[in-house]
Amino acid sequence: MFAFIRSSVVTHSLFAGAVQGSKVRAPGASALLRHYHKPSRTASFKTLTKDDLEHFKSILPAETILATPAVGGSSDPIELEGFNADWLNKYRGNSQLVLRPKTTQEVSDILKYCNAQGIAVVPQGGNTGLVGGSVPVHDEVILSLRNMSRVRNYDELSGVLVCDAGCVLEELGNYVGERDHIMPLDLGAKGSCHIGGNVATNAGGIRFLRYGSLHGSVLGLEVVLPDGTILDNLSTLRKDNTGYDLKQLFIGSEGSLGVITGVSVITPQRSSAVNVTVLGVTSYENVQRAFVLARKRCGEILSAYEFWDATCMGAVLHHQSLKNPLSAEFPFYVLIETSGSNKDHDDEKMGGLLEELLEEGIVEDGALAQDDSQIARMWTMREGIPESLGKTGATYKYDVSIPIPVLYDIVGDIAKRLESAQLYKPGESGLPVKLVCGYGHIGDGNLHLNIVAEKFEDRVADIFEPYVYEWVKSHRGSISAEHGVGLMKRDHLEYSKSPEMIAYMKRMKEVFDPKGILNPYKVV
Amino acid sequence: MFAFIRSSVVTHSLFAGAVQGSKVRAPGASALLRHYHKPSRTASFKTLTKDDLEHFKSILPAETILATPAVGGSSDPIELEGFNADWLNKYRGNSQLVLRPKTTQEVSDILKYCNAQGIAVVPQGGNTGLVGGSVPVHDEVILSLRNMSRVRNYDELSGVLVCDAGCVLEELGNYVGERDHIMPLDLGAKGSCHIGGNVATNAGGIRFLRYGSLHGSVLGLEVVLPDGTILDNLSTLRKDNTGYDLKQLFIGSEGSLGVITGVSVITPQRSSAVNVTVLGVTSYENVQRAFVLARKRCGEILSAYEFWDATCMGAVLHHQSLKNPLSAEFPFYVLIETSGSNKDHDDEKMGGLLEELLEEGIVEDGALAQDDSQIARMWTMREGIPESLGKTGATYKYDVSIPIPVLYDIVGDIAKRLESAQLYKPGESGLPVKLVCGYGHIGDGNLHLNIVAEKFEDRVADIFEPYVYEWVKSHRGSISAEHGVGLMKRDHLEYSKSPEMIAYMKRMKEVFDPKGILNPYKVV
Repeated sequence: MFAFIRSSVVTHSLFAGAVQGSKVRAPGASALLRHYHKPSRTASFKTLTKDDLEHFKSILPAETILATPAVGGSSDPIELEGFNADWLNKYRGNSQLVLRPKTTQEVSDILKYCNAQGIAVVPQGGNTGLVGGSVPVHDEVILSLRNMSRVRNYDELSGVLVCDAGCVLEELGNYVGERDHIMPLDLGAKGSCHIGGNVATNAGGIRFLRYGSLHGSVLGLEVVLPDGTILDNLSTLRKDNTGYDLKQLFIGSEGSLGVITGVSVITPQRSSAVNVTVLGVTSYENVQRAFVLARKRCGEILSAYEFWDATCMGAVLHHQSLKNPLSAEFPFYVLIETSGSNKDHDDEKMGGLLEELLEEGIVEDGALAQDDSQIARMWTMREGIPESLGKTGATYKYDVSIPIPVLYDIVGDIAKRLESAQLYKPGESGLPVKLVCGYGHIGDGNLHLNIVAEKFEDRVADIFEPYVYEWVKSHRGSISAEHGVGLMKRDHLEYSKSPEMIAYMKRMKEVFDPKGILNPYKVV
Repeated sequence: MFAFIRSSVVTHSLFAGAVQGSKVRAPGASALLRHYHKPSRTASFKTLTKDDLEHFKSILPAETILATPAVGGSSDPIELEGFNADWLNKYRGNSQLVLRPKTTQEVSDILKYCNAQGIAVVPQGGNTGLVGGSVPVHDEVILSLRNMSRVRNYDELSGVLVCDAGCVLEELGNYVGERDHIMPLDLGAKGSCHIGGNVATNAGGIRFLRYGSLHGSVLGLEVVLPDGTILDNLSTLRKDNTGYDLKQLFIGSEGSLGVITGVSVITPQRSSAVNVTVLGVTSYENVQRAFVLARKRCGEILSAYEFWDATCMGAVLHHQSLKNPLSAEFPFYVLIETSGSNKDHDDEKMGGLLEELLEEGIVEDGALAQDDSQIARMWTMREGIPESLGKTGATYKYDVSIPIPVLYDIVGDIAKRLESAQLYKPGESGLPVKLVCGYGHIGDGNLHLNIVAEKFEDRVADIFEPYVYEWVKSHRGSISAEHGVGLMKRDHLEYSKSPEMIAYMKRMKEVFDPKGILNPYKVV
C-alpha cells in the first residue's frame, strides 16, 4: 500500500461545486458575440411557407414541431433560442422551424420533402459543438434528434450497444455501466451531447488514449441521406469486410452528408480498479518525460494522461471553488488515470511510477485520489477548465494537433505576439487580453489553446488568426484535432489538407447531397 | 509462481518444423484448381502492345519490368507465374507484364498512362490473399509494390511508423520491435504479406481483439488514384478532424479505388511480459464461458483468444510434426495470450484464471508455455492450421462473422448436409470430402470454416454454396469477416449489404476510378 506522495492531502473540503458534465452559458455572452464571417444565404434555398409547415404537420406529431408565426406556427421565437444558438453563444442562426422526429422513418420523410423542395436543413444533436456546426447559419430547418433516445439492443457477451442517435452520452455510460462496461469515449459535455453528434463529429475526448478513435469502435450506423434513402449499415459485427466501409465517411462528416439516426458501438469491459493522480511539474519537457515513463510503467492500464498549465489552474480553482491539492503552484499539472482489473496490481504500478517520477526529479509533488469522490474532483480540475475560462471572459478556442515535442510552444508564441502588440501582459489586468493558456491530451498530441479577452474584437483576433493556422501547418499539424470544421474552419481546410483531398471531399458531398441542402455553409 | 497446470508438459522436443509465417503451395495444387466463375474480359480494355511496353520502359528502370514475348519483352512466362496465381493456386490470371516501381511518382506515371490508354491494372502486395483479389483475372498489368519497402520515418515518442506500402509485415514488426513497440496487427502470412496489402484488405488477425481495426490504427495513407493523382494524406497525427476522412475508404477497398503507396500507422508499446496457454475444452459452450472469464480476470492484458476444433488439431499435429501438449484429446482447444508490463502481475492474473477455469469445470486440461520457444510452438498449433489443411487436400475456405453464441453451429450444419448427400462421413476415408472443421478468433466473432475435399468439384461445392452465405445472412453475419471480397465474393455482396449500400459503393468506384481500370471484376 502507498498513500499520498509528499504531504499533499486531498480532502472533500478542498473541492466543491463539481461541474463535470454540466453546461453553463458564458455570462453576458450575447454581448460578447463576435462578428464572425457569415456566408450569404444561398438564394436557391426555398424560404419556408405555411404550406411547408402543413406538410410537416401531416408527417409528424404536433408536439414534435416548433414553428414561429413567421412560418405560420404559434411558437414564441424564444422557444427556438436554444436551438438557434450554440452554447458559447458565438454562432447564431435564425431558424423559424424545429422538427424533432421520433423515428428513422420520420427523419426520412422530412429529408425527402426538404430535398425535393430545396429546403436547407441543419441536423442537431446535443448542440455542444464549438465550431458552429450544429446551429443554423440563416433560416435552415433544425432537425433535432433529441426525441430519438432509445437503446435498441445491448449484448453483454460482446459488449455491442445499438441505440438511437439522440441518446445522451452520459446516460449511455450509466446504462452500460450497470452492465459492467463503459462507453469507449468520454468528454466534458457528456451530460448533454448525443452519441449521434459524437459520431458525426468524430469526438475524441479523454479515453482516446486507451480506446482509440470512433473509426475503430463504431461498428455500424443507420444514416438517412438527403433524398430520404435509409442506409442500413447498423452492423453489430466487429469484423465485416464486405465492400467499401461507407459508414466511415459519415464519422466526422458533421451532418453534411447524411443524418445519423442509429449507432452500433463496441463498449469495453469496465475496470474494477481506477487510480487518479494529479502531479505538479516544473517544465513542459518534464510533462513529456513523465508521459514516456507512464506509458512504460503503467502500460496497458494507462487510461488518461492530461495536462494543463498554471493559468488554466488559476482559472479553474477560482471558478470551481477548488483548492490546489498540491503543496505549491507549478507551471504545469498532469493528471494520470489508470484503470485495470486488479486493484493491488494497479496500486503497485502507479506507486512505482510515482516513486520513480519523484526520484528522477521529473515531478515535484503530487496527490493521489483515495476514493471515488476525490477522483471526480480531480477530474473536475481538468474538465472544469473550459467553463472556467468561459466565465473569465470572451474565449477564443483553438483545438489543434501538433507533434508532442513542440506542442506547447504555440502558447508562448501567441502570448509574445499579443505582448508585442501591447494587447496583453501576463498578470496584468486592464488590457484587452486577460489570459493565454493551454491544456489538453498529451498522449494524442492534442492541445486546446485558449485566449481569453475582455470581448471578441478583430484587433485581438487578427494577432493570432490566421497565425495559429500557419503555425500548425508549418509543423504538419491539424487545425482541428477533435472539434471539427463546422462554420468556423470551413475556409481554413487548406492549412491541413491538400487541394486534391479537398477536391475529393467536395466530390463526396456531391454524391451524397447533390442539392447541398444538408448543413450548408459548413465543412467543405 | 505457478507452473504447468495438471501434468501436461510442453518441451522443445514436442515441437518441430514450426511454419509460422511461411508460405507453401498446396501439393499438386494446379491439379486441384477449381473451375471458379471467371467473368468475361471487358472488351474495352486495351490489349498491350509493344508501344505500351516501350512507354513503360521510358518511365521505369529496366530491372523493374517483367514482360513476356507476347508484349514484346524477353521474360520467360514462368517468371511471371508467381504473380499470376495466388498462393493457394485457386485463382490464376494471364498477365504478360509485371511492373515493380520503386517510387510513388513511378506508380503515378504508370497509372496515368494506363488510365489514359484504358489498360487494366491489378495492384499486388505480398499476394497472400484468399479471395483472388491480388491476381489478374485476364491480362491486366500487374503492379507489384514489392520494390517499395522503405521505412520512411519512425517516431519513438509517439510510436508512429511511416513506411512504403511494400514493407513486409514481419520486417516492420522486427523494426519496431527493436524500438520496444509492436505492429498493431499480426497474422499467419506475416512473413510475406505487405503492410499496403494489409491496409487495402483491412486485415484483421490475432491482435484485433486487443488493438482493434486498422480503421482505428492507420493514421494516414498516400494513395495514387487511377488518373495519376497522388492523394497525400500521410498524416502522423492521432487526431485530425479536418473534413471527411477519405483515407478510410481505401482501407478495405482491395486496390479497386486507388493504389496505396505509403502508410502511417500507430504502433503500440511492446509488452515486456507475455504468457500463452493452450487449453482443452469439452464443449463450444465452455469455449464461450472461458472467454467471458478470461475477459474478466485478465481484462487489459488479454491479447488473444483463439480456438480450434479437434479436426483442425489432428491436421496440425500431423502436418507440423507437433505433439498435443495436453494429456488427452478434446473437442475444442483454446489459446489464450496475455501481454502486459509486469510479469509477476500477469502471472498472477493468468494463474488465477486457469485455476478458476479448472475449478469451475470449464476447462479439462491445459498447458502453459514456459519460454519464448514454447510460446512460438503453441502459436504454430494455431497458425499452422491453414497450411496443414491445405496439405490435406483441396480446401474450401469461408471466413465469416457470426454472433458468438451460434458461431460454431455452422460447422455442424455443413457436416450434416454433406453427410446427407453421402459425400462425407466423419472419420471415414475414401469419400469426396475429408474434413469439415472450424477455427478462428472467438473474441471477434470470426470463424474460419474449412471444408477439405479430395478435389475441387461442383457436386461438393454445391452442397454448401450459397448455403453458407444464406446461413450467415439469416444470422445477420458477414460473409467476409477479414478476407475481403475479391473475385470470390463479388457476386455475393447482397448477403451482407443492402442494395442501397451496394449502389453507393458503386458510386464510390465511379468517383475514384471512372474508367474502371483498377482491379476490375472484383469487389463491386
